[in-house]
Amino acid sequence: MTEHLTLSIDAMGGDNAPGMVIEGIEASLAILSSVNFLLYGDEAQLAPLLKKHPQVERVSEIRHTTDVVTNEEKVRTALREGRNSSMRLAIDAVGSGEAAGVISAGNTGALMATAKFVLKTLPGIDRPAIAAYFPTERGDSVMLDLGANIDCDADNLVQFAVMGEVFARNVLGRKNPSIGILNVGVEDLKGNDAVRTAATMLQESSLPIKYYGFIEGDDIGAGTVDVIVTDGFTGNIALKTAEGTAKMFGAFLRNAMTSSMMSKFGALLARGALEKFKMQVDPRRYNGAMFLGLNGICIKSHGGTDAIGFANAIHVAVELITNSFNEDIKKDYALLSEQRADIKKVSG
Amino acid sequence: MTEHLTLSIDAMGGDNAPGMVIEGIEASLAILSSVNFLLYGDEAQLAPLLKKHPQVERVSEIRHTTDVVTNEEKVRTALREGRNSSMRLAIDAVGSGEAAGVISAGNTGALMATAKFVLKTLPGIDRPAIAAYFPTERGDSVMLDLGANIDCDADNLVQFAVMGEVFARNVLGRKNPSIGILNVGVEDLKGNDAVRTAATMLQESSLPIKYYGFIEGDDIGAGTVDVIVTDGFTGNIALKTAEGTAKMFGAFLRNAMTSSMMSKFGALLARGALEKFKMQVDPRRYNGAMFLGLNGICIKSHGGTDAIGFANAIHVAVELITNSFNEDIKKDYALLSEQRADIKKVSG
Repeated sequence: MTEHLTLSIDAMGGDNAPGMVIEGIEASLAILSSVNFLLYGDEAQLAPLLKKHPQVERVSEIRHTTDVVTNEEKVRTALREGRNSSMRLAIDAVGSGEAAGVISAGNTGALMATAKFVLKTLPGIDRPAIAAYFPTERGDSVMLDLGANIDCDADNLVQFAVMGEVFARNVLGRKNPSIGILNVGVEDLKGNDAVRTAATMLQESSLPIKYYGFIEGDDIGAGTVDVIVTDGFTGNIALKTAEGTAKMFGAFLRNAMTSSMMSKFGALLARGALEKFKMQVDPRRYNGAMFLGLNGICIKSHGGTDAIGFANAIHVAVELITNSFNEDIKKDYALLSEQRADIKKVSG
Repeated sequence: MTEHLTLSIDAMGGDNAPGMVIEGIEASLAILSSVNFLLYGDEAQLAPLLKKHPQVERVSEIRHTTDVVTNEEKVRTALREGRNSSMRLAIDAVGSGEAAGVISAGNTGALMATAKFVLKTLPGIDRPAIAAYFPTERGDSVMLDLGANIDCDADNLVQFAVMGEVFARNVLGRKNPSIGILNVGVEDLKGNDAVRTAATMLQESSLPIKYYGFIEGDDIGAGTVDVIVTDGFTGNIALKTAEGTAKMFGAFLRNAMTSSMMSKFGALLARGALEKFKMQVDPRRYNGAMFLGLNGICIKSHGGTDAIGFANAIHVAVELITNSFNEDIKKDYALLSEQRADIKKVSG
């Protein structure tokens, strides 16, 4: 990294904030250099923490505010009454250009709504989507939407496809990423109106994207496509079902492995392999959820994350910025708008 | 088992039929006794197979037909033109009372539509649902719908809750099973109209059921509730996502375990434990999907199943019958209708 970056941090967001946030920044410094942090939050809590973490103090600046958006807060209240909240001010720093990206582990709904209000969406994009990496047998895929939009029509799904494609090219580095729409079967007739119409739009459009077709739930883990497009209701449940299945497998495996002396000994010998396995599926590696479609970089870290998870969310932000996602977004403006016009022609 | 049972079998349904079907019946005989089978299918293919499996021949009777419903066949065509298909005739045997239950590994949509047409739904149930066991950290849960109903309203979800509750009591043996509705969050405001209205109906009704509330995707594997209620679109994708995650974990684990000599040796020692683990999560154990809400027992085996999976589907059918699910359904008629009236009062 040659460029110098400034990131704004909602230091009060997340179950274990602000301690976890400061430790997360410290952990991120093991890899990052040339990054400065604007820490939005309560100086009375942050200053003593920085004293304990001089490495973080050296690259950080506290921007004092005592207002916090809680997890229980409704989106409307957060928008109306949260103007001086650590979350809002951290987003404002991206809006004003002072920071290149913002990271928060706070209230997802409030973060999405505030980011949309402050940063606005890209031309041609009606609704931003939450996207995340998904580990697969063939490497990482990207999946969207994961809960920002409960009800989606075909237009929304097509926009997600376009955003996901740009993301997979710019950030995952795929040359010609394939796109699939999540459905209950692969035949054209399967599913609801939204997925069927979106599929037709993608098939018939002149968009320069590689539309694979419908995929089923088990295609996610198999890595059948690079970009998985779905509505926020299904996407959120699929993501969490996968997380839950992973946890269940971990529990089964632990039980099975410790059930006899012999297998305990075996487990000890296989520990290195198991550690590698755990690394591969560590949810903290996939902790940062990106808000795509916004005119700015905004990363949501899991509310219950620890420092390593938060550090990873910082890395995701830096990756998006240093892969010139921001500039490419501007370049893609025109493309997206043209595509949008194309799509409108198809759907209209 | 003291009672003598007759099951009707769609011997031509499934990717590996009829060989897999005959082997599956043979495998099921290791546990079952006092069961007879009516085999619907092509005598020219079935007779030689029975010669090779005399154990099966002893308890089976071939009902010859050459018509088959293919996997590609549309539901409407199967209904209209499949009157002499092995699937249809096998279902007819349940409708006429000749068989106590039917098992098919054929076209799911055609099986559901034909079973609904022939057997009809229970009073108070608008639409049958596909239900299946789901392995969890706390034992098996039951989940429905898994794909029979793509669009569901609140009434449908409430009916699924009632059916799932009866099932969990009668078959899983839970005294007071808990019921959760799958959603993108646990707060009352989360989700779409259907889940929010269904939740209100269940909360406010006088149904003697234990409604837990909303659950999220990761609650499935955790075993938070005994009965998971969802629409067929989300349920199908959640189920297959879990299957895919399981497969992905298996692949990661195999890679990790064979990556060095030491861990290979460890894996060898831990093999017993791993086998136990595999048994616990073997998809073939969960192979039988039940069609609930029909006036008869109808089990769908996975299209790509092997003999062990098909044997398990037979076991599920026998379990439903010998746990007097059929008679209990009749007893539950009145209860369901009353509940339905209650629910209507609440929702109306």
